[in-house]
Amino acid sequence: MKALAVTDHGVRIVDRPSPMLREGEALVGVELAGICNTDLEIARGYMGFRGVLGHEVLGRVRAVAPGAALTEQLSRQRVALEINCGCGSCTLCQSGVKNHCSTRTVLGILGRDGGLAEEVAIPIANLRAIPDAISDEAAVFVEPLAAALHAFDSPGPKPGDRVAILGDGKLGLLCALAIAPRRSELARVLVIGKHPSKLAIAEAVGLEIAIASEKLSGIFDFVVEATGAPEGLARALAMLRPLGTLVLKSTHAAKSPIDLAPIVINEVTVIGSRCGDFDRAIALLASGAVDPRPLISKRFPLSDGERAFTEAAAPGVLKVLVMPENA
Amino acid sequence: MKALAVTDHGVRIVDRPSPMLREGEALVGVELAGICNTDLEIARGYMGFRGVLGHEVLGRVRAVAPGAALTEQLSRQRVALEINCGCGSCTLCQSGVKNHCSTRTVLGILGRDGGLAEEVAIPIANLRAIPDAISDEAAVFVEPLAAALHAFDSPGPKPGDRVAILGDGKLGLLCALAIAPRRSELARVLVIGKHPSKLAIAEAVGLEIAIASEKLSGIFDFVVEATGAPEGLARALAMLRPLGTLVLKSTHAAKSPIDLAPIVINEVTVIGSRCGDFDRAIALLASGAVDPRPLISKRFPLSDGERAFTEAAAPGVLKVLVMPENA
Repeated sequence: MKALAVTDHGVRIVDRPSPMLREGEALVGVELAGICNTDLEIARGYMGFRGVLGHEVLGRVRAVAPGAALTEQLSRQRVALEINCGCGSCTLCQSGVKNHCSTRTVLGILGRDGGLAEEVAIPIANLRAIPDAISDEAAVFVEPLAAALHAFDSPGPKPGDRVAILGDGKLGLLCALAIAPRRSELARVLVIGKHPSKLAIAEAVGLEIAIASEKLSGIFDFVVEATGAPEGLARALAMLRPLGTLVLKSTHAAKSPIDLAPIVINEVTVIGSRCGDFDRAIALLASGAVDPRPLISKRFPLSDGERAFTEAAAPGVLKVLVMPENA
Repeated sequence: MKALAVTDHGVRIVDRPSPMLREGEALVGVELAGICNTDLEIARGYMGFRGVLGHEVLGRVRAVAPGAALTEQLSRQRVALEINCGCGSCTLCQSGVKNHCSTRTVLGILGRDGGLAEEVAIPIANLRAIPDAISDEAAVFVEPLAAALHAFDSPGPKPGDRVAILGDGKLGLLCALAIAPRRSELARVLVIGKHPSKLAIAEAVGLEIAIASEKLSGIFDFVVEATGAPEGLARALAMLRPLGTLVLKSTHAAKSPIDLAPIVINEVTVIGSRCGDFDRAIALLASGAVDPRPLISKRFPLSDGERAFTEAAAPGVLKVLVMPENA
């Protein structure tokens, strides 16, 4: 099968055998997959990953490993793929936090081939049924929307808080769409970016927008850093009031010189935030409360995956989707 | 009067007029003052401060500004000096967080001469009476002990947590002494440093100790970073379990390259922590639950303040105290 993989020679379309199923796994025929900034960072060396990329995947189950059972719903409906695969037996897995299992694999990111391919293997426990009401183009956003929603978890902004989202890339805009349904309970929700055309997506759901250069020092209770740039932390810290909360969403390969003193002096809480709850994302998509489709910039067939990947890194481009030819 | 000040030519003993009192202020005759690592960092450029150093101060009130009243207790007893002086009228001051007033001065750190001097001016509201039961040598630790206690505030370690304190300098050891009374409710309290002679102070209050090079990866629920070194953050993050809490206590002038990815991947909460509650520190010293005196390395007269400052920066030295000759 065709797959888009990180190789020693860069990101390439490769020919791979169909994935072998391990115990409890399903073989998913990929119908649509998204390219994420994490994929771009992986191509730059983040996580040291080699293998098939792709962790935003919509598909249908084609087969299951011998002895494995599949619910009627999962066999009939389209599925999204929870990306963290825990060992199932450690303390963390047993307490429900398989996302942090120390021996986990992560779809297309860590020790497990991803879904920018014709087929992908995944534990059946990681399959999530997609209601028919959700279009393919919206459903492929379940994973990144879940991650965006998680930016506002434990502890999220309180009613009356002034919230800022720093970054108008895919992740920043999904965070904006994720918080928009809660707009009325917050004093302010400002999305800050560099691109008027991208910020317009946040403005269209009723949020305030600003170009990054404006003066916005020390006035926000809750800031989400989603710039994807190492300097984003310092900018986000500068926007935050003393005792405020900063959620770090960006992951990147670069180390950059950082002044930690503002964290201590202003007694800020910095919360790292990664993956979120698929069920909540699916519910918001099904109800129409969130519609991520304005983020779609381009679609490519899988055979054009290399071009899709280059395009995803180009300035001004938001979500690039990839569709296997046989989907 | 003599004072130890940051000048354009470094840290020097200078001759200064006795401080002028502003409205609501008291003139405190200094009896004993401590040198803190923050003072050493200020001398390296942190905060851009010029003026008299010293924010760990024990003294007695000698005079008050015209029209100001002093309680009988404050006029009779020794006093410790709360270091943050807020404007008193902004939203933060009105809500009780003058520590974060945007126009605050901070004793010996920001816009206000400190107490490594014969006399110092401070708002009467910042005076805290020291019970007679506390010795001078213990009482001079009220400010840093309050800051150390604050490392375990909101949210502090939960019962059953595995706690690590990284750093065996003054601040790390005070954090160790601060948490020691809660030892029985925690699964583990480990103090990690480089100096067996310093770690012995933590061991003497019943805590586990380790030399930094030991392998301690990913097993702590709550880590306090008190190394005073820019690389401390990365080491502390490595010790923390996923979803754990890291308290940043160190402040320093240096920016250093930092890999933020572990914060995001492990969804760590990083909490900046600065000043703490003097009343709690005073109560612990008065009850004898905490005795910081083993941290005292040397005492100098104020006239030898430059030597005291050099000594405070020397390897193996913990707290250096300075006493004005006329105290």
